[in-house]
Amino acid sequence: PMTSRLEQLRASLQSHNLDGFILPVNDEFMGEYVPASARCLEWLTGFTGSAGLAVILCDSAWRSEATTPQGDVGRSTTGGSVSPQAAKAAFFTDGRYTLQASQQVKGYELHNSSDLLPESWIAQHAAKGAVIGYNPKLHTLNTLQRYRKKAKDITFRPVEPNPIDAIWEARPPAPASAIQIHPLRYAGEEHTAKLKRMGQEVEKQGADAAIITAADSICWLLNIRANDVPCTPFALSYALLSKDFGNLFLFLDPARITPELKEHFGAQVTVVHPDNIKDTLSKFRGGKVLYDKGASPVWFHDVLNEKGVAVVEGEDPCQLAKACKNNTELDGTRNAHTRDGLAVVRFLHWLDNEVLYKRKLTECSVADKLEEFRRMSGLFQEPSFATIAGSGPNGAIVHYHATPESDRALTGDAILLLDSGGQYPDGTTDITRTIAIGEPTPEMKDRFTRVLKGHIALATAIFPEGTAGGQLDSLARQFLWAEGLDYDHGTGHGVGSYLSVHEGPQRISKRGGDAALKPGMILSNEPGYYKNGEYGIRIENLVIVKEHSEKAGRKFYAFETLTQAPIDMRLVDDALLTDAEKQWITDYHRAIYKTFANDLTPEELNWLARYSGK
Amino acid sequence: PMTSRLEQLRASLQSHNLDGFILPVNDEFMGEYVPASARCLEWLTGFTGSAGLAVILCDSAWRSEATTPQGDVGRSTTGGSVSPQAAKAAFFTDGRYTLQASQQVKGYELHNSSDLLPESWIAQHAAKGAVIGYNPKLHTLNTLQRYRKKAKDITFRPVEPNPIDAIWEARPPAPASAIQIHPLRYAGEEHTAKLKRMGQEVEKQGADAAIITAADSICWLLNIRANDVPCTPFALSYALLSKDFGNLFLFLDPARITPELKEHFGAQVTVVHPDNIKDTLSKFRGGKVLYDKGASPVWFHDVLNEKGVAVVEGEDPCQLAKACKNNTELDGTRNAHTRDGLAVVRFLHWLDNEVLYKRKLTECSVADKLEEFRRMSGLFQEPSFATIAGSGPNGAIVHYHATPESDRALTGDAILLLDSGGQYPDGTTDITRTIAIGEPTPEMKDRFTRVLKGHIALATAIFPEGTAGGQLDSLARQFLWAEGLDYDHGTGHGVGSYLSVHEGPQRISKRGGDAALKPGMILSNEPGYYKNGEYGIRIENLVIVKEHSEKAGRKFYAFETLTQAPIDMRLVDDALLTDAEKQWITDYHRAIYKTFANDLTPEELNWLARYSGK
Repeated sequence: PMTSRLEQLRASLQSHNLDGFILPVNDEFMGEYVPASARCLEWLTGFTGSAGLAVILCDSAWRSEATTPQGDVGRSTTGGSVSPQAAKAAFFTDGRYTLQASQQVKGYELHNSSDLLPESWIAQHAAKGAVIGYNPKLHTLNTLQRYRKKAKDITFRPVEPNPIDAIWEARPPAPASAIQIHPLRYAGEEHTAKLKRMGQEVEKQGADAAIITAADSICWLLNIRANDVPCTPFALSYALLSKDFGNLFLFLDPARITPELKEHFGAQVTVVHPDNIKDTLSKFRGGKVLYDKGASPVWFHDVLNEKGVAVVEGEDPCQLAKACKNNTELDGTRNAHTRDGLAVVRFLHWLDNEVLYKRKLTECSVADKLEEFRRMSGLFQEPSFATIAGSGPNGAIVHYHATPESDRALTGDAILLLDSGGQYPDGTTDITRTIAIGEPTPEMKDRFTRVLKGHIALATAIFPEGTAGGQLDSLARQFLWAEGLDYDHGTGHGVGSYLSVHEGPQRISKRGGDAALKPGMILSNEPGYYKNGEYGIRIENLVIVKEHSEKAGRKFYAFETLTQAPIDMRLVDDALLTDAEKQWITDYHRAIYKTFANDLTPEELNWLARYSGK
Repeated sequence: PMTSRLEQLRASLQSHNLDGFILPVNDEFMGEYVPASARCLEWLTGFTGSAGLAVILCDSAWRSEATTPQGDVGRSTTGGSVSPQAAKAAFFTDGRYTLQASQQVKGYELHNSSDLLPESWIAQHAAKGAVIGYNPKLHTLNTLQRYRKKAKDITFRPVEPNPIDAIWEARPPAPASAIQIHPLRYAGEEHTAKLKRMGQEVEKQGADAAIITAADSICWLLNIRANDVPCTPFALSYALLSKDFGNLFLFLDPARITPELKEHFGAQVTVVHPDNIKDTLSKFRGGKVLYDKGASPVWFHDVLNEKGVAVVEGEDPCQLAKACKNNTELDGTRNAHTRDGLAVVRFLHWLDNEVLYKRKLTECSVADKLEEFRRMSGLFQEPSFATIAGSGPNGAIVHYHATPESDRALTGDAILLLDSGGQYPDGTTDITRTIAIGEPTPEMKDRFTRVLKGHIALATAIFPEGTAGGQLDSLARQFLWAEGLDYDHGTGHGVGSYLSVHEGPQRISKRGGDAALKPGMILSNEPGYYKNGEYGIRIENLVIVKEHSEKAGRKFYAFETLTQAPIDMRLVDDALLTDAEKQWITDYHRAIYKTFANDLTPEELNWLARYSGK
């Protein structure tokens, strides 16, 4: 069917005088999860991964003398099944998905986007003067500028509606889940106060209003949650926030607004059907509107220009505000982590027993069991992401997800890497534990201990106000680096408060960790080590940035560890630990014991006691 | 005389229909040192510091209703001696020089530029439509864009020649020191090979030629050195490097070219009088020329536009190439450091004896003595910067320079901070030692030991290819941070090979340390701690980035410490050191002992032996 769909699309493009089209994996809300109704790339190509982009050229755009790549090193990942001269469409994904793409996507030249960028491919293959369409709701201004800069001879033309819309039959309806009020006892600040506060931020940035398109910004700002996509409790919508009293236009189907919600919103919020965004924007003719060119669809930028509204480039002010949790949110996440920790402790005890009695276990079965323990908490809503349960070599695949086909039995001596999390109304959790199944090798223990030392170094770091996450990243890597080892992912990502398990601007990473860490931010602390084809190790706790001390006018911050679940000491080589590190481990386990002393069975408590040396 | 000069300048501006003028401290070569002939700011204002900028407005530009600062917090540092409404000129400097400026600069509103930027002051004080002049050789495009962005109602107009030129009487002549060939035995690569290599880099950046204005780039590229300014062996000039065979136009008074130098240059280098730069640039009409907008005068950008040459924005390719020293340069700097280390060892032994016998010492006298020991090496050329000798509270002033007025006697119990360096034909040195005079307090020992632990952590760091200096900065600060302490300067700067003691792009710093560290780069490792009004501590060695290991396709780098001089163990609190740190210190001192065993007197050797436990 994919071949026929591609041909239908090409015919549609030609009828609109287009020579090509660019289709990214994301929808117009640019979040991590895309609802079924918006999975255009999957519909067209069959690709089910979370990172991908297709460039479709028509015969009219094909440059016969297509040049070989310059600068970027082009490399077909199909193993030569489609010759570059024959393909008039290309598919780009990253290293996590190249194998999957080669299995799912047929008829496209496949590329790893870290080897060849789509814009470079276009520059090389599209004929001079070709007109390539794009849906302006699916790309930011930044992305489009990148395309235009690289492929100067090509015209990139916005196309509305998306040509896929006319072709896609039996398309699922757009999500319209029930929108819930996120109560003040979890949010800690009335949405009216947030609106006012953010309105002032918009004014500070020199604008009359701000385009807000990030779902977490809007849900945070209005104290609402919904279920439009899995794992993140988002209501997908756009908004326009005015500097005046923080009045807000919410672009959302009014049919979704219950009387209760209408009352919650109050006079400050005006719900406008998404079909009428342009009319609303045109009210700001002659004024200035803030637009985040790295985050919001270029469509808004174009409409503002069209309507005579000046664009002020800047950042969505809700992103930073939302990242700095208030005390109610922090107490909430502490409670959520206690609830979540109890589930993990019980699970780990159960797992040890299962292994002891040699019961049959697989990656999927342990992941299901862990979710079962979480569900015993009445407040558990859903997983905060799809659990990663990787045994042995599967653990070394950083973004592995066990499927019935790949599901590996936990047998023999292996390491199980288990990364999971939960959504609770008072907080979002994310924890990775690495568990010895059987007898670990000395190498495994050495690596695990170095990862643990890095985890502790970060957990105990004290750092001055103004320090960015990127400045702390090496603390977590130094003990691996000393042995010529490293891991190819960030050390920490921001985490929301019953929002996305991945949020910005905070980040602890080699690159892109430029945002200063501020009190109330939640981050993960997750160094790891992966040995290709053998095993994977990761130790992940969530932490809060908190004030630590002030001396001679200098403020210092530190982390408070939220996650409460034992670390597998069978994987630790004591000889590599300093006294201070040993003390941290003991204190950590004793605190866990204390927290759960009244919630565990005597058998579970006995098992837990071993970790704290009681 | 300053008042009269200011009035002369204002009259000259008015006669040219200008309402104001911006005068920075730098000259057209934008280096750290400005020759006497180009110290226009000093001539106008009396200011002798190394960071400053004056904005002079005429009555015609004065906005009566001058607004109070918004966004930036304006703050007069004159203590209110000049009221903002009265002043029509402002002087900006940074925290190091605000006190000095308040003593030297009269008739200007004084500001710390970290509190109020010059462009903000202009936006607040200059009348709408005012025309403010600037000399386009003294500002980069980046700076000018900052001005234009902030003060949108003001016209900034390039003015040539500099209006100061017509007023300054008895001006010293421009420097024209003898230009020396930097021999291959020190340079390690023929300039012809460098020209070819850099020509290829220019082509890679998509240009036909590159404007090169950094003196260190040109001296490195042509293997020449001179003495146009103190402390850095530069010949001040501009150049235009062609992609074709790396042919180069050198814009330098042909009178300075000796027959020997002409022969050295060969056919690839064409010397052109600086008056004829425009003619040379016009040869590239219709072509593309690389321009570094953060480093080169905007004058070049304007001329390229005027002559119909397309500007390619990019970086001067020589900066990175020069920073990665070849093996000859590395051997050279090792030799220079041995020579320099011998002088420092002898000096430290001498100092201990002087203190023991209670001889009268001052900051200036010890600085002179250290230079005397350096001069005993026949190859010593000059200091690589003005020595910082700060005793007690003076040590806490990060950029302190002892003058006859401030010169402090070394008496009682105090810490002496001594930061100095030498220029040798085979390398440039920079070393800081902190020396106990009398009995240090437990607090001093605690702080010194934390600085030392940070120094060792950085010296022994192992890190993967691609790591930037900014990623390692926290390793040096962590032990101070743990106590709520920090230092307000970078941890490491790049160092040249018989060039500037400060060079880019490499840097180890909280901010701006984005350049990846590459083998052959030389950097300083200089954590410190400063207690206002009491004492200053800094431990500085130079290090080379070298290849360390390769495992599973990952390359790792490490540092080799170059500097060889003992660290004052009287300031160390052993209890704070790990076994590994103690071992590093012992090994470091043993290596020094071994290096100098044959060069020291028995008395000196005896003294040195105490450090290595022999």
